[in-house]
Amino acid sequence: MILDQCRLPDEEVELRCRSAAEVANAIRTLAIRGAPAIGVAAAYGFALAAALGEDLDSAYEDLGSARPTAVNLRWALDQMRDDPTRERALAIHEAEVARCQRMATHATTLVDPGSRVLTHCNTGGLATGGYGTALGAIRAAWERGLVEHVWVDETRPLLQGSRLTAWELDALGIPFSVIVDGAAPALMRAGEVDCAVTGADRIALNGDTANKIGTYGLAVAARHHEIPLYVVAPTTTLDPSSATGADIPIEERDPLEVSHRYPARNPAFDVTPAELISAIVTEEGVHRSPYAVSLPPAVLA
Amino acid sequence: MILDQCRLPDEEVELRCRSAAEVANAIRTLAIRGAPAIGVAAAYGFALAAALGEDLDSAYEDLGSARPTAVNLRWALDQMRDDPTRERALAIHEAEVARCQRMATHATTLVDPGSRVLTHCNTGGLATGGYGTALGAIRAAWERGLVEHVWVDETRPLLQGSRLTAWELDALGIPFSVIVDGAAPALMRAGEVDCAVTGADRIALNGDTANKIGTYGLAVAARHHEIPLYVVAPTTTLDPSSATGADIPIEERDPLEVSHRYPARNPAFDVTPAELISAIVTEEGVHRSPYAVSLPPAVLA
Repeated sequence: MILDQCRLPDEEVELRCRSAAEVANAIRTLAIRGAPAIGVAAAYGFALAAALGEDLDSAYEDLGSARPTAVNLRWALDQMRDDPTRERALAIHEAEVARCQRMATHATTLVDPGSRVLTHCNTGGLATGGYGTALGAIRAAWERGLVEHVWVDETRPLLQGSRLTAWELDALGIPFSVIVDGAAPALMRAGEVDCAVTGADRIALNGDTANKIGTYGLAVAARHHEIPLYVVAPTTTLDPSSATGADIPIEERDPLEVSHRYPARNPAFDVTPAELISAIVTEEGVHRSPYAVSLPPAVLA
Repeated sequence: MILDQCRLPDEEVELRCRSAAEVANAIRTLAIRGAPAIGVAAAYGFALAAALGEDLDSAYEDLGSARPTAVNLRWALDQMRDDPTRERALAIHEAEVARCQRMATHATTLVDPGSRVLTHCNTGGLATGGYGTALGAIRAAWERGLVEHVWVDETRPLLQGSRLTAWELDALGIPFSVIVDGAAPALMRAGEVDCAVTGADRIALNGDTANKIGTYGLAVAARHHEIPLYVVAPTTTLDPSSATGADIPIEERDPLEVSHRYPARNPAFDVTPAELISAIVTEEGVHRSPYAVSLPPAVLA
């Protein structure tokens, strides 16, 4: 059962997936999205395939290719191939949520009291199957009284910020305002942003980070204003096969998501080079440049 | 008669204004927008008020306060108050279009052959009552064989790029792609942008420039990638009463333009400091830093 994120915040509808192909389709159509959450969903999908006696090689391929950028997908499926049980999928899910809570605790050490925090896309419970990465960190910091306000980039083209992050912050009672993505640099210049916090879809071994389109521009603007940018993501997002950001494939999505009438380019992600990231927070702790040394050994091999 | 820009590109509908109040309302609701175009519209609105025997002081106030950021509005109205005739409004309109063509010619000297040009918002014929400012420059450069491709920022929240600039480029047969605003920095990093060209809603005497929200972030990203940013705007956009950008009022529009459900902040413009602008092009020529010296004396006093 998946809470259909395409229909939030207008409707809270559960989607019942009856095969690995239906789970893959839910991932492809973004009914479930967010790098950790699609890893968890793929794990359940694979367990479902095994329980139904489906062909596991084709389930692996179908689920693994549903989105190209997030590395968690392959990671979860490689674990499931060794043990294609419901129990294994549940363990992957629970471990993901536990990692979120640990990284949130580490991240709160970076947030000063009274902070106005800017975030991009959705990295909350919806994106992770639980507590959240960057939004989990913001939630933990708010619970400790450190957050005064959250600026929510609406995150075009699919509006994960104004639809999903706003829905989560509203439910948690955390004060926030939605802004268009283009307004963030002006708010920084006006002194209304103390730090920016985002998640990651994939992190290369040198710290270069692929995340939702627009993150790179935020990083450039944050550096220009000497505002720290923190990336909060589990070690499952580290990709040992990507030495640098240049090795990360960037998903180009349907141009119709941008314009129904005119030609469009629609890269779903961009890569922020490590030198623009003030710290990367994983469940292992707070990591600083040089990331090739400070990041924990990738647990994925 | 105004081509209703709120309904473009889906419908081409003309709006007949029967009083200065109706013109002011068309400006307020963005049926007509773009700094030069609203100056021209206000001039016609004032001539209409005079022809109908309306109270000219209240017409001046109503039209002049319809939008707060563009300085052309007051400039046109001050001219009309001295000579509230249809002929004067026509002369203002024709002078605005002639200025566009002169500034476009100057701007083409800045564009190298084969350029991939990025632009923001709409600054074409729709925005100016004629040829266009930044988009006029792109059009003139394309007619001289200098432009390979135009990247069109969709320009949230009101999508003047994907609705209006795309509509104009499509009609002119100039190759383009719409992108979400957050994608521009990634395209710059990928080496796919040779220059950025925007208009201006108001230019302070030191060259600081107010323009559609998102322009400042573009300027920061362009500087980070050593890509030139050119501002193309008529001398009527120069504001002798603004010494610097800090003197320019920024319109905050209805938060409902950003989100129907959650709290939002909706600044319509931001200010790009002069040091991030490679050149300002007016009908008088190409002006370089320091702008306090190089800009033509404001013709508005």
